[in-house]
This record gives sequence, structure tokens and C-alpha cells, in this order.
Amino acid sequence: MEDRKPTVRVCVSPAMYTLYREENCITVVVDIFRATSAICTAMYNGVKNVIPVAKVEDAQQFQGDEYILAAERGGEIVEGFQYGNSPLLFLNNSSIKDKTLVITTTNGTQAVDLAKKDGDLCVGAFSNFSVLTDWLIEQQKDVMVFCAGWKNRLNVEDTLFAGAVVEKLIENGFQFDIDADAALIAETLYKAAKKDMEGFLKRSSHRQRLKKLNLEKDIAYCLELDTAPVIPFLRNGKLEQL
Amino acid sequence: MEDRKPTVRVCVSPAMYTLYREENCITVVVDIFRATSAICTAMYNGVKNVIPVAKVEDAQQFQGDEYILAAERGGEIVEGFQYGNSPLLFLNNSSIKDKTLVITTTNGTQAVDLAKKDGDLCVGAFSNFSVLTDWLIEQQKDVMVFCAGWKNRLNVEDTLFAGAVVEKLIENGFQFDIDADAALIAETLYKAAKKDMEGFLKRSSHRQRLKKLNLEKDIAYCLELDTAPVIPFLRNGKLEQL
Repeated sequence: MEDRKPTVRVCVSPAMYTLYREENCITVVVDIFRATSAICTAMYNGVKNVIPVAKVEDAQQFQGDEYILAAERGGEIVEGFQYGNSPLLFLNNSSIKDKTLVITTTNGTQAVDLAKKDGDLCVGAFSNFSVLTDWLIEQQKDVMVFCAGWKNRLNVEDTLFAGAVVEKLIENGFQFDIDADAALIAETLYKAAKKDMEGFLKRSSHRQRLKKLNLEKDIAYCLELDTAPVIPFLRNGKLEQL
Repeated sequence: MEDRKPTVRVCVSPAMYTLYREENCITVVVDIFRATSAICTAMYNGVKNVIPVAKVEDAQQFQGDEYILAAERGGEIVEGFQYGNSPLLFLNNSSIKDKTLVITTTNGTQAVDLAKKDGDLCVGAFSNFSVLTDWLIEQQKDVMVFCAGWKNRLNVEDTLFAGAVVEKLIENGFQFDIDADAALIAETLYKAAKKDMEGFLKRSSHRQRLKKLNLEKDIAYCLELDTAPVIPFLRNGKLEQL
């Protein structure tokens, strides 16, 4: 009898998405520093839904009291926008309640854009780790963790998160895909670093990049588990709480 | 004063080569299972030089006693060819002495083809690990380890080798590139797996693929250190012993 355990795979960069995509899986888009951490946080702190868009111009087209606009490029808030991708600006912020967040970022929202045609898509971060993985385990469908990376390159923090998801799903009866290697690399990375992720990330590129921008508090927040236990799930171009 | 320590970077797949390429570095192309292991072995065991070609048809154009032709696709010898990419066929094989090996493989020779225009290129494998890394350290130039992967996807064995090179170069005064993450991931993977690479690789895809083809001996050989201490270096389209 064929083994029907659901599989978990990892795509480490948007540059490799076409090689790993599969229509019948749940895709978890991850951009730890900071788009998907920010989206989870905004949703948990009151926004009604989130419209991820690829371009700054796309975001500018949404006008009206019902929208709050966020745009980040290269780690900084784009001029003219109130928000970027810092989750901390959405934390305990009553002015975002019941609004629609329109957001565009360097990597994360581009990845959503790439994967949105290929079946179920949700957003993951350490911020929603437990609620997300528990839900994935319940679904018993194949899962792909899709790392947004940094300008199509690999990054450590997204790969770490992918490894955390792989570890938990494998422990709960999932199996590796026929193309196991990226998932195995991510899982091994996470096992090696999980005791001190912040220490481990000190040598990474994006960490250096964010340090220059004085984002120490953002980093610590984005690595914390379960600060925003919601699952942003894509329906008709909008991420809504599942 | 600016820090002038040479850097080491890793490109995990040909699909990402354009993102990581740099003209002024030494590129080490690696395809552990099995093209670059085979090339080192053939050269150490007597072939005069090696012409890596991208297509099977390109290989067929070399006719004459001075050539031996090798072609592999999907792990198997292409019909009509005497050799594929198994290093064991070149081991203690007197018929290859002073010949030119023309070789095309699924991944490794494609990677050579991609990188050959970008400055110094040599071939690496566990088979030539010590002699290669000692030479790289002497050069004091920036290094990129370019993993051939599997059909543009990541693979564990090439990433492991990249990590071994990174570990040794960093220990010997090299620094990470500004884009450190792929190198950091490879190094962490190698540190986690180096005590038992064969055991670690049991969960990998290519290992499963080769197991089906009865290539246990090839695998063990390709993971052995320093069995073929030569450095195949590209000059005018031919890999020659440095």
C-alpha cells in the first residue's frame, strides 16, 4: 500500500519557486525580518484583513479611512507612508482596529505574489508558530514552506523558521518529499541554532543590515514564539484570519 | 583601514548563480555525487586533461584514440558511452593514461559551463579537499563554492562540501562575504554532519536515488577525504592539473 503520509518541503528562495511549486499543497510564506511577522502582529492586534501588494504604486492606489498603508524597501519605510514592515508599530495600536492593511515589502509580499495562484496560501512567522503548525498538522495536506529570502538570495532567519516547521511536522507524522534536501538542510540548521537563535543570527547578513538600522527590538520580537497567534490565510487576494 | 581579508561565499544552486557570481574570485565547482569526484579521480589516475561539455552531442564530436568519452544523465551512463560519472571506473585504470577525458553530466558539467567565463575556475570534491583548500588559502583571493545541486535544486552533499570549505577557510583567516547567509548555512550543516556524513546523507534525496542504482560503493568513495590529491583547473576550456 502506498504511504499516504503528508509531506513537507522547503523552497529557500523566490528564485527557486518554480522548481518547488506544487498546486495541491498548503504554501506557508515566511519573511521573518519582518513582513510576515508584521502581518501576523497587525492581524492579532486588530486589523480586519491584509492586502499584500508587489509594488509601491499598487499600495498608493488604496485611499480612504478604511485603509492603512505600509511600504518598506531596503529595510526602511518608503517616503510618504506611515508604516513599513516593523511589527512593533502594530503592537497595541488602537488606530489600526478593523482597518485593511495594504502592505508592500522588499521580499515578503513579492513571495505572496508569486505563490498566490498555486492553491492554499497562509503566512507564517515565529509570532504564530504554534497555532500555524497545529493547524497544518490537522489539515493532513502536503506543506511547502516558502522562504522570501533577501532579494532572491537565501537567508538564515527564514531558513531557520522553515526548519522549525519541518521539525514539528516530521515529529507529527509528516514525511520528507521525494526532494528532501532543502527541508533536511533547514531542519539541521534549526536544530543547531534553536537554543540561541539570536546569538546564531549575529553572523548573518540581514542581522547586520538591521543592526545598522537600529532594529534590535524588532529582531528580538520577530524571534519570539507565539506573540501573535493568528493564521493569515489568503482569500480573493486578501489575507484574512482563519 | 579597510579589512582586506579574502572572503568566502557559497552559491547553493545553478538557479542562483547570477545572484552570487563575481568575476574576481576563484570559483570552485562541486558535484560530489559524482561529476567532480570523478574528474579528480580520473586526473589523479592518469588522464592528461578533462574537457567538460554541457551536452551529450558535444561529447560525441570528440573522436579518436586520444579521447575517452563519458556521459551521464539521471545517474546512468548514456547509451553508447563507455563511461558515466562513476569515479570507480577511473580508479587504477591504465587505459585512461595520458588521454583526454570528455565528460558531460546532469549537473556538474553544466555548472562548469555557467561559471567558466567568470575568472578562475577549479573543481572540488572531498577527493581533493586538503590539496584544494591549502591552495585556496595560499592564493588569498576571494572564493566562491558553487554547488551543482540536482537539476537546479539544492542538494545536501554539495552543500556539505561547501560547508567544509567554508569552515577551513574561515579557520584560516578568510571572512564571510557581505552576503554571508548561504555560507553560514552550509558551514552549520557541515559542522552538524561531519562526524557521520554517510549516516547523515541517508535521509537525502540523491542518496535515495543512487541507492536505487546500486551505487553504495560510489557513495562511500565520494565521501572519502583526499583520495585524489590534484587540482583540476580550467584553462582554455580544458581542466588541467595545476
